[in-house]
Amino acid sequence: MERKQFSQYRNEEMATLDFDDFKLNSDGMIPVITQDDKTGQVLMLAYMTKEAYQKTLETGKMTYFSRSRQELWCKGDTSGHYQYVKSLSIDCDQDTILARVDQVGAACHTGHYSCFYRDLFRTEE
Amino acid sequence: MERKQFSQYRNEEMATLDFDDFKLNSDGMIPVITQDDKTGQVLMLAYMTKEAYQKTLETGKMTYFSRSRQELWCKGDTSGHYQYVKSLSIDCDQDTILARVDQVGAACHTGHYSCFYRDLFRTEE
Repeated sequence: MERKQFSQYRNEEMATLDFDDFKLNSDGMIPVITQDDKTGQVLMLAYMTKEAYQKTLETGKMTYFSRSRQELWCKGDTSGHYQYVKSLSIDCDQDTILARVDQVGAACHTGHYSCFYRDLFRTEE
Repeated sequence: MERKQFSQYRNEEMATLDFDDFKLNSDGMIPVITQDDKTGQVLMLAYMTKEAYQKTLETGKMTYFSRSRQELWCKGDTSGHYQYVKSLSIDCDQDTILARVDQVGAACHTGHYSCFYRDLFRTEE
C-alpha cells in the first residue's frame, strides 16, 4: 500500500451522483467532514440537507444546515471565515461527504483553527 | 493564522472527558472521523457507542459499532487491516471524535486506501 504525501492525493475517479443518491442519517441529512486542502488538518464535522448541498455547489462556499438554529448556514457569513470548496468526495457507502477547502481564518467559533483542539488520548512519540 | 504542515499538528490541550460527557446523535452514538496519522488522508467515518469507545481505549485498536450488523466491530478483525490509535480528539461541541491512526493496509472494504475514493466535484488546479 503506497503512501503519498497529503498534497498528492487527488482522486482520479469521479462519481456522477445527485443528492438523492446519498444515504441520509436519521435526521435526513448527510454528515460532511471538512478538511484544509493545503495542510490536511481536519477542521470540523457538520451536516448538509439537499438545499445546503445545492447551495454549496452553486456558490463554491461551504453551506451547511445548522441543527441548532434549524436553518441554512453559509459558514463565514457572520465571521468572515469562509470555506472555499476545492473538492467534494463521497464515500463507498454514499453516506458521508469529505470536503477539501481553502479555509479563511479559523474554522472554529472558539477561535481555534480546527474544532478538534483538545486531545482525549494520545500515544507517546 | 499560521499554517503548519500536517505532521506538526499536535494538540497541546488535553480534555479529561468521559463518554458520558459526549453529545450523542439521534441513534445514541458519536461519529468518529478516522485519519491516517502519517499522511493526513481522511480514511472513513464510523460511529461509536460507549462500549466501542471503551474497547478502543483498552485495546488501542479502533473499534466501532456496526450500524448494519448492530454489533461491536473491531476494524481489521476480518481483513487484518487494523487501525492502531495514535490520538483521539474531541471537537468544541463534544459531538464528534477525530481519530489519528496507523492504518494497516486499506481502510475501505472495496480495497481502496480511503473510503473517499470518488470525487463529486473539484476545482481546476
